[in-house]
Amino acid sequence: MTELKRSWIDSANAPGCDFPLNNLPYGVFSAGEGDLRCGVAIGDRVIDATALESAGILRADPDADVLNAPYWNDFMELGRDVWSSYRARLTAMLAEGAADDIQEQIISRSVPMARATLHMPFRVSEYTDFYAGRHHATNVGTMFRGAENALPPNWLHMPIGYNGRASSVVVSGTPVTRPQGQLKRPEDDSPRFGPSERFDIELEIGAIVGQPSSGPISVAQAFDNIFGYVLLNDWSARDIQAWEYQPLGPFQSKATATTISPWIVTAEALAPFRTATPAREVALLPYLAEPGPTLYDIALEVGLRPDGGPETVISRTNFNEMSYSSAQQLAHHTSSGCPMRVGDLLGSGTISGPERGNCGSLLELSWGGKEPLTLDTGETRSFVEDGDTLTLRGHATGRGYRIGFGACTGRVLPAKA
Amino acid sequence: MTELKRSWIDSANAPGCDFPLNNLPYGVFSAGEGDLRCGVAIGDRVIDATALESAGILRADPDADVLNAPYWNDFMELGRDVWSSYRARLTAMLAEGAADDIQEQIISRSVPMARATLHMPFRVSEYTDFYAGRHHATNVGTMFRGAENALPPNWLHMPIGYNGRASSVVVSGTPVTRPQGQLKRPEDDSPRFGPSERFDIELEIGAIVGQPSSGPISVAQAFDNIFGYVLLNDWSARDIQAWEYQPLGPFQSKATATTISPWIVTAEALAPFRTATPAREVALLPYLAEPGPTLYDIALEVGLRPDGGPETVISRTNFNEMSYSSAQQLAHHTSSGCPMRVGDLLGSGTISGPERGNCGSLLELSWGGKEPLTLDTGETRSFVEDGDTLTLRGHATGRGYRIGFGACTGRVLPAKA
Repeated sequence: MTELKRSWIDSANAPGCDFPLNNLPYGVFSAGEGDLRCGVAIGDRVIDATALESAGILRADPDADVLNAPYWNDFMELGRDVWSSYRARLTAMLAEGAADDIQEQIISRSVPMARATLHMPFRVSEYTDFYAGRHHATNVGTMFRGAENALPPNWLHMPIGYNGRASSVVVSGTPVTRPQGQLKRPEDDSPRFGPSERFDIELEIGAIVGQPSSGPISVAQAFDNIFGYVLLNDWSARDIQAWEYQPLGPFQSKATATTISPWIVTAEALAPFRTATPAREVALLPYLAEPGPTLYDIALEVGLRPDGGPETVISRTNFNEMSYSSAQQLAHHTSSGCPMRVGDLLGSGTISGPERGNCGSLLELSWGGKEPLTLDTGETRSFVEDGDTLTLRGHATGRGYRIGFGACTGRVLPAKA
Repeated sequence: MTELKRSWIDSANAPGCDFPLNNLPYGVFSAGEGDLRCGVAIGDRVIDATALESAGILRADPDADVLNAPYWNDFMELGRDVWSSYRARLTAMLAEGAADDIQEQIISRSVPMARATLHMPFRVSEYTDFYAGRHHATNVGTMFRGAENALPPNWLHMPIGYNGRASSVVVSGTPVTRPQGQLKRPEDDSPRFGPSERFDIELEIGAIVGQPSSGPISVAQAFDNIFGYVLLNDWSARDIQAWEYQPLGPFQSKATATTISPWIVTAEALAPFRTATPAREVALLPYLAEPGPTLYDIALEVGLRPDGGPETVISRTNFNEMSYSSAQQLAHHTSSGCPMRVGDLLGSGTISGPERGNCGSLLELSWGGKEPLTLDTGETRSFVEDGDTLTLRGHATGRGYRIGFGACTGRVLPAKA
């Protein structure tokens, strides 16, 4: 475990700061009426990476502007060695003791975080969602199919995944309109069309593919191809899902919105927090075996704030609960020869821990609505209500610092009339 | 039903020609070492639409080059009125009686079809596959779940769909490598990893979304937003699918390749062949009702050619068998608020007719491998074998002409060692 790296930007050295020098996550921001630019978060400031590039102060590619764009995809295309050298040079420029003229060049090309509007940090090529949390799969399986059939027979052998909808991925802060769809309770003769009555969240971490591949790749190669991670809330309409998902899986129940946090936390920043997936009772086939620890120790929480009220933290869990890492998921994703592209986003699956208070969805937290949660305000919740703001937070903990993700938040608006 | 429109390009007037003046489908081609250009098929020639645009002879947008690109997406962005006026002007230029100088300007900007290499005609934004053929759903359901539970309870109420993988869509002629994956027969204790032994095709038609939408749209609007259609072969590994698909649907079984025909046949060219979906026993919810005929009468066939042998036509069917049109599928796709983008591709689902010889997959044609097909060579087939070339063909029939799609073909290569 590494120590805090001190920066000449004081706010980055404060205990509890999400964005110390050890982190340096990548995002896209605008300030005032300005255009969208690539930025790096440190302390309470956003460094204008597009301006550093155009001024020749810090370039990823000596010959081409890759940050003169409202996304980090072109930067990702350059590959792992460039990711690493860029980060090393930026770290040196921001470290305590950097030359005064460097400090001046950088501070004049930065804005206070409070003045920045954050946008999607990358263009999502395609979005895949997994189902790799054992507690979550067991809980949902128990509710839907009974305790004996909770875990599907394939679950212990592969990371179950399905393709999601890239066009529905939005950045933190984007309002989410309650979806409409076909609803049919078991006792109904036929379905009706109306607003979802069981609208839910899913606490996940999203992995961003930073290098393309055209055939099957190993878990080790997959681990190297992942550029970074974001928090991800896969909004889910449980009632639409229950009626539509047999036999081909979730479709419109998952297509309304998926919210991601605005900062890409790099794999390199998370390296000190690598951990192996939990012990398993069934050995994996060789193509899925971990070459070393490929999961991360990242503490996570979910807050629910009713309209006008204070927030209640409704769940606390950790990414290290997952049975399959993002690298294992990516390797499985390529096993059929499926081509992967820069900007592909892989949702981890809902991250639930062993106890009720560690669950990453309201479906589990309220046990299908049968045991509603009580909020700090005294109100209860089975599912998300209009006006509720849901916020995911996460961080890895080092010695005297943390690698934070920032907030992944969304407020639910009523269904359209 | 309209008559043949005669062209001064004689080959376009021949009976049985796929590309008469009534058709004018859009593709992307290269000739020799030349770069990729937008082209229009007529008779045995490809008109260089990129050259017509740059020379100012035929422009879609007076102010911007939209065809100076290896795809038709920018053209689609311009919208329905432009699609229509461009087509009308091109039709006039190619019609019998066009001025000699026009004929000269065009013929000098065309190449023989035989010299053209065809490429993907558009950039696929996202790919969705449906399950909207009743015969296919009943056949597969009977094999997998028994005759009583053949049709899932939701099937009569909505077009069941799932998200596919856009990165795996390839143009006709691209070889397809047999996929590997997890395989587990019911009698096996645990899965193994190896080449699919039940690799299959799915005969479908793909609809291309030509206008974006950001919330729910009606079937009428969806119909207007569809730019055109292609043939589509959704290669499927049945054994990988059987083991992976519960509970979240097909994933790696469908991610190896999806082949499309190289010419986008426009909705306008197909307009005379509109037909309503078949009578249904259960009324649809209003958001899915057809505002008028939204399906098409398109005759389809599948050919299988073993390595070195002659082709056997193994199936003949018609697109008019489908229970849900592409427009109904697109409307359903947006019902949750899912944003749609130009270049989204919607697979119709496998198109099977009422009899065995009308089935659009080998799974059905060989009844799960229990009743192998006999080819004209005397060989038998349960599923696709290495070296087999599968070809889809389709056309609508007018008075003295047809609107053809050209071939959608792919040869299967052995799995990688």
